[in-house]
Amino acid sequence: MIRFIKNLLYLLSGKACVPQSVRQHELLACIIDRRSCRSFTDEEISPDAVTTVLEAGRFAPSAVNLQTWSFITFSRAEWRKTFERPIPFNGAYAIMICADIFKLKDLFPEMHDTPYVNIMLAVFNAGLAAMNMTIAAEALGLRSIFLSETGRTGLLDIDFLRDRLSLPNGVLPLTTLVLGKPSFSVPGIPPRQPWDAVVMQNRYEKTAGDRLRNWYDQMLLGFKITHPFSNLKAQLAMYRAKMAIAEKTLRKIFHDCSL
Amino acid sequence: MIRFIKNLLYLLSGKACVPQSVRQHELLACIIDRRSCRSFTDEEISPDAVTTVLEAGRFAPSAVNLQTWSFITFSRAEWRKTFERPIPFNGAYAIMICADIFKLKDLFPEMHDTPYVNIMLAVFNAGLAAMNMTIAAEALGLRSIFLSETGRTGLLDIDFLRDRLSLPNGVLPLTTLVLGKPSFSVPGIPPRQPWDAVVMQNRYEKTAGDRLRNWYDQMLLGFKITHPFSNLKAQLAMYRAKMAIAEKTLRKIFHDCSL
Repeated sequence: MIRFIKNLLYLLSGKACVPQSVRQHELLACIIDRRSCRSFTDEEISPDAVTTVLEAGRFAPSAVNLQTWSFITFSRAEWRKTFERPIPFNGAYAIMICADIFKLKDLFPEMHDTPYVNIMLAVFNAGLAAMNMTIAAEALGLRSIFLSETGRTGLLDIDFLRDRLSLPNGVLPLTTLVLGKPSFSVPGIPPRQPWDAVVMQNRYEKTAGDRLRNWYDQMLLGFKITHPFSNLKAQLAMYRAKMAIAEKTLRKIFHDCSL
Repeated sequence: MIRFIKNLLYLLSGKACVPQSVRQHELLACIIDRRSCRSFTDEEISPDAVTTVLEAGRFAPSAVNLQTWSFITFSRAEWRKTFERPIPFNGAYAIMICADIFKLKDLFPEMHDTPYVNIMLAVFNAGLAAMNMTIAAEALGLRSIFLSETGRTGLLDIDFLRDRLSLPNGVLPLTTLVLGKPSFSVPGIPPRQPWDAVVMQNRYEKTAGDRLRNWYDQMLLGFKITHPFSNLKAQLAMYRAKMAIAEKTLRKIFHDCSL
């Protein structure tokens, strides 16, 4: 019971432990206090803001500067036309973030026989670009959320997205970044793994998993609070079914990308 | 010749095209004007700065909040002890960023039969955390570089790193983020792919690769300027040999991670 209350308090009031000296730092607040938004107003976002966010993605760093990403953009109307429903959470703008080695294949024949390395680096690079876009949005006063599954928008729905957007092999939809003005924000943060399960000095700490029990309980509790009629285990079982389908497609893509 | 001069000018003066309205924005400058630093001073960085950077990584968003990453940290002395040489570019601190599904395997048996999906999402998440750390460092007045190959520090040297740091299957070293105070900065930016090869409206643009010719020439030229006695093609051939070895290891890991 005491543990339950402790976990509940953590969920409602948890914060990053940044040193006193940087707590008033405006730029760091954008990064450290950022949290996903699940409810946007009807307000549109300006074309300048959209341009800036995309430019932040385009200027992200990448391994060997290869920029192995593509961003497929949707206004509200364009999303509705393409997917026959609104952007999830009433988002004002959506950017589907893809790892992309397809467009490089003619220029870099050196990469043809290493699809696993290529795709891994491309996915990592796409993560860099995605985060750059998110913080740029935050700096502009917008809020955002990455969709991994909600509304068939990410890697778990790769078959659907490949079909609907005619993506060739070598273009892997990873997530959709939804942007807009927030209509409200909930207190607290989704629970973070404890420092000593994440940060390791000089070598990998093989017992890190043992330090995740509290975090796991907080995850279950947090999910229960936000989904009173479901639970995380049921959600994961649903993911599992979708992941099994995505898994098959990914195996095929990894195989076919060996040119 | 005119094209050569144009490309040279671009390399020396290229900048992101952010709208006038956001050009004076301090945080956006941190994101958009950030560039990798290849020469650090001997100065150390403060423990508070290190904590803040790592905390920015720990608080990054991730698919289903699974935080599939681990950060292995090294001071100068620790790096030297582990790798028997200094941190590349005289960096003051190094953070090896790993995708990590190993520590979750007992808690999430739902994920056991989808290694491709798990690893892809883990690598993407690690990219988000990596970029958050980089911008936090930038906001603190530090500079940084991601090492993908220099000094055997990234995915291309996965065999070496797995061995040296005793990494289990399910822990994939992706890159090393090197931090420090800059000793000097070079003008310009590494060339970016043109907007219309990166940003696509509503659907994937299959001809994007055709729009990369100028960028490719700029890449060759940029490499020549910074490496007068080599060229990008020779460098890529060297990468290719290393990638072939990493490829074998990755295939084995993807296979063995099916539990």
